[in-house]
Amino acid sequence: MEEVERLTALQISEDGRRDIEGPIVREFPLTISLNNQELVTLLCSPSHLKYLAIGYLFSEGLLKDKDEIRTVVVDEQRGIAWVKTKEGKQVDTELLSKRFITSGCGKGAFLYRAGDLQTETSVESNVSVSPDEIFELVDMFQHQSEVYRATHGVHSAALCDNKDIIIFRDDVGRHNAIDKVFGECLLNDIPTHDRMMIISGRVSSEMLLKVAKRGVPVLVSVSVPTNLGVRLANELGITLVGSVRRKRMNVY
Amino acid sequence: MEEVERLTALQISEDGRRDIEGPIVREFPLTISLNNQELVTLLCSPSHLKYLAIGYLFSEGLLKDKDEIRTVVVDEQRGIAWVKTKEGKQVDTELLSKRFITSGCGKGAFLYRAGDLQTETSVESNVSVSPDEIFELVDMFQHQSEVYRATHGVHSAALCDNKDIIIFRDDVGRHNAIDKVFGECLLNDIPTHDRMMIISGRVSSEMLLKVAKRGVPVLVSVSVPTNLGVRLANELGITLVGSVRRKRMNVY
Repeated sequence: MEEVERLTALQISEDGRRDIEGPIVREFPLTISLNNQELVTLLCSPSHLKYLAIGYLFSEGLLKDKDEIRTVVVDEQRGIAWVKTKEGKQVDTELLSKRFITSGCGKGAFLYRAGDLQTETSVESNVSVSPDEIFELVDMFQHQSEVYRATHGVHSAALCDNKDIIIFRDDVGRHNAIDKVFGECLLNDIPTHDRMMIISGRVSSEMLLKVAKRGVPVLVSVSVPTNLGVRLANELGITLVGSVRRKRMNVY
Repeated sequence: MEEVERLTALQISEDGRRDIEGPIVREFPLTISLNNQELVTLLCSPSHLKYLAIGYLFSEGLLKDKDEIRTVVVDEQRGIAWVKTKEGKQVDTELLSKRFITSGCGKGAFLYRAGDLQTETSVESNVSVSPDEIFELVDMFQHQSEVYRATHGVHSAALCDNKDIIIFRDDVGRHNAIDKVFGECLLNDIPTHDRMMIISGRVSSEMLLKVAKRGVPVLVSVSVPTNLGVRLANELGITLVGSVRRKRMNVY
């Protein structure tokens, strides 16, 4: 399904009024079912839905490993992703009902609670990246999204090494973009350790938890972090780089 | 509690490296308890928490009217808002566990489902606003947020009439900013019909449902809508104005 739809609008400017037709970003409801239990409906961009479903389940702690997965079937017409695991476990609805909703651009994450911070392992890595490498990667990153250029309606996330973008995804939800990248890594055995993540949106505490879960030691954003984001980066041993713009960046 | 915290960072630019200290937006976990049942933890900016709690419950359909409320107590230290209603109703955890998570910058809304759209009443109003009035209001809106100017880390929402901003709130979550405005309206008997809402962020389907619930006939954004946002605006009879910038706007 296309990530973009052409719609008409009335444009009013100093030059008068005219009908315009242009690309608008598509918002698509995807329901994720785990072992026939409907967990959640995400509003997302309708692409790479298999990666989104797997990345979401992983971020929420409902999947730990590719080996647990038996099947992943996406029905794009009905907007459902069915994931079945070998063990066929069910999620406690009592647990599901305790939700933790995020501040940021994106979605709620229902299994993040105070305990999450304590059990999260810190990231250890000897990876080293120079400021010039980051400037170059961010420059590539900002030119990569055709959907953003057309609509200004999506956020992006990319997994990189020091020289190149390895996976790039965008989505109307900034959390979804990250989950799509990590879902693809999980399904296709793409390593995430010793690599870095670049994101377009603001960095809240949740972003740090997501990258920590995949052992990514460096998180770079074009935008600013929150105070909890900075604090979590310290606690989790993640290098957080924010406000990367025109040859300037802040390292927290 | 302050919405901003001063933190240090290492700034790297073409001029070299230097330690800087600057304002970073604060991200605060607020747990909302309804009749002693913990419903959700929102990550938000720590201001106007009473309004946020009430606005959230209203947006989720868990409160319909100010008269239902018995007490609202916020413990800022522990980050809990206790809301008690006269009837003391409990929310079905089965219902809570079926969550609908949003694409946008913000939080999940757990009671939005397909059925929501059908029961939503469309907005009827004879309000009329001129393009020049909108340009002027958006100009005021964009200069209003001190927190945004200091941190670039918040979204804003404002209730306006044709000439003035009536309530202006900002928050790290764009949904929270809207909920704070509507919570204040509800608690202080401020009418929302025949008025308009201006928001800084992208317009997804949920934003339309929120303003429809309060009978607001015009939604204006500095940013772009999604296709579902445009469609819902049509269905709900809400005038949606997007991409308002420098004397240009798109009316959907």
